[in-house]
Amino acid sequence: SQTASSEKYQSDPLPSWNEGKSKASIITYVNDVTNSESPNFIPVSERIATFDNDGNLWSEQPAYFQLFFAIDRVKEMAAAHPEWKTQQPFKAVLENDMAELAKQGEHGLIQLVMATHAGVTTDEFDADVKNWIATAKHPTKNVGFNELVYQPMLELLQYLRANDFKTYVVSGGGVDFMRAFVTEIYGIPEEQILGSRIKTAFDYNNGNPVIKRLPELDFIDDKEGKPLNIQKIIGKKPVFSSGNSDGDLQMMQWAASNKYKSFMLYVHHTDEVREWAYDRESHIGRLDKGLDQANNNGWTIIDMKTDWKVIYPFELK
Amino acid sequence: SQTASSEKYQSDPLPSWNEGKSKASIITYVNDVTNSESPNFIPVSERIATFDNDGNLWSEQPAYFQLFFAIDRVKEMAAAHPEWKTQQPFKAVLENDMAELAKQGEHGLIQLVMATHAGVTTDEFDADVKNWIATAKHPTKNVGFNELVYQPMLELLQYLRANDFKTYVVSGGGVDFMRAFVTEIYGIPEEQILGSRIKTAFDYNNGNPVIKRLPELDFIDDKEGKPLNIQKIIGKKPVFSSGNSDGDLQMMQWAASNKYKSFMLYVHHTDEVREWAYDRESHIGRLDKGLDQANNNGWTIIDMKTDWKVIYPFELK
Ligand SMILES: [Ca+2]
Ligand SMILES: [Ca+2]
Repeated sequence: SQTASSEKYQSDPLPSWNEGKSKASIITYVNDVTNSESPNFIPVSERIATFDNDGNLWSEQPAYFQLFFAIDRVKEMAAAHPEWKTQQPFKAVLENDMAELAKQGEHGLIQLVMATHAGVTTDEFDADVKNWIATAKHPTKNVGFNELVYQPMLELLQYLRANDFKTYVVSGGGVDFMRAFVTEIYGIPEEQILGSRIKTAFDYNNGNPVIKRLPELDFIDDKEGKPLNIQKIIGKKPVFSSGNSDGDLQMMQWAASNKYKSFMLYVHHTDEVREWAYDRESHIGRLDKGLDQANNNGWTIIDMKTDWKVIYPFELK
Repeated sequence: SQTASSEKYQSDPLPSWNEGKSKASIITYVNDVTNSESPNFIPVSERIATFDNDGNLWSEQPAYFQLFFAIDRVKEMAAAHPEWKTQQPFKAVLENDMAELAKQGEHGLIQLVMATHAGVTTDEFDADVKNWIATAKHPTKNVGFNELVYQPMLELLQYLRANDFKTYVVSGGGVDFMRAFVTEIYGIPEEQILGSRIKTAFDYNNGNPVIKRLPELDFIDDKEGKPLNIQKIIGKKPVFSSGNSDGDLQMMQWAASNKYKSFMLYVHHTDEVREWAYDRESHIGRLDKGLDQANNNGWTIIDMKTDWKVIYPFELK
């Protein structure tokens, strides 16, 4: 009956997920470890869930969203930096020469990041990011970057929190870039967002304390950096871990070694129509060793194309 | 009447505090900023309260408790290190020669810390600390170190949490030393404990992931390190900050610069009978510039001797 169907929908914690192995395995796990009669019961204080961000909570193609921020900032700041017209990697950015920018490699990327993420106070940087996200548009999807989050993952975060899991972002992206706007989208407070960071210094500006952002890397929250940062900041092993690339593999292994029953979840980008399809050969978000280990260890692998009814929240409107 | 008095006691959130300026200023502040009709109302997500540990939540005389742990560990480990019999600072520890140990200075201390805090996995170190705290006794008070916490501060932590403040420890002490046992005492989860730390490395032990503790400093969470670590890890400015030494001054200034109404609280050690009395000239927990700024800025200064009815929880029994 329509009533029963409507009730079923209301009681479905993951309405944007198609029925299938991925959805069933998540719900079975959560029901098991939150049941105080189960031998697998996990105390609330240990229900730590860690989520990678790029390609896992939001899209990451054709480039990490934070790179678009850096590019847009270089263009805005160019008037004050006439030397950039002839100096790489800035010249490539100002000329929209993405082939040349790619040639500049990791060193070029770090130069872009330092020029646009450092030399300001934490408050100024926060304002820079908020100003950017308010108007910036994704180059092919033509919507705000903050609209390109995965609706099924928003539901999963909410479902875990409703079951007293503490949800964290653990991303290779810049922690202060994310903190400037994802709290509202994900329902995750600033203090539960972990990421890469640059060094900072405490100083006074006319007697007022400020924290200045310095053009030097402090910590890269990727690969083995993920469990290391989780241990430093959270001090507990996750019981639920979710990612989409080989950069998440050590975090997955760390969660898999938990004495409590743990859940490892990989997002596999298989939908070239609604999102993008890529894995073992991709330069962004490569999923190769991680896919093998997930298969070998029986971890859950989301097939984006078949598991997700919708990709983005705006599809629901 | 007795009934009225009993009701008053039950409704008193800080029963171990004597009536007076310190207690009144705390309660007035909390009532103000949690009142949604007040112009000073602070949203729950911004109610971040940061507490120094040594000399602020527990005693720190005649030496930091973590030093007693290092000393006891050196003695336990000595059988496997015959060279320590002739090698400083270990020789001084093994001979109970505190004068010689003091002569070894900060370099000697760091050697003790590295020998006893590194070279093990995070799980092994956690067990080392738990084993120690289960039996170790303070040299003059002759009770467990975990009994030398301040009852009035336990009540303050609880009172703030009851008013939806998120309470954090932000200590110069080692974060993993504290995490091994203070969660239960303070009611503060591991992920809300910030401190100094050594470097770590991710590795595999027979295929099982482990995190190894390396004999190298990673971060000193003292002085300007406190606001820097708060910004890195919490990502928000505290509205309530509490400490007892000049090492907390930058954290106090950081909280004082909050756009929300903030509260700065210094513990002044004035009770040489029940605890210890020290401030401007002390080698441990020196409070000099901080005391001047607290007085000049109207921050609240706890006079331990007159403000606190009891110091330690065991006095209530
Ligand atoms: Ca990713
Ligand atoms: Ca202190």
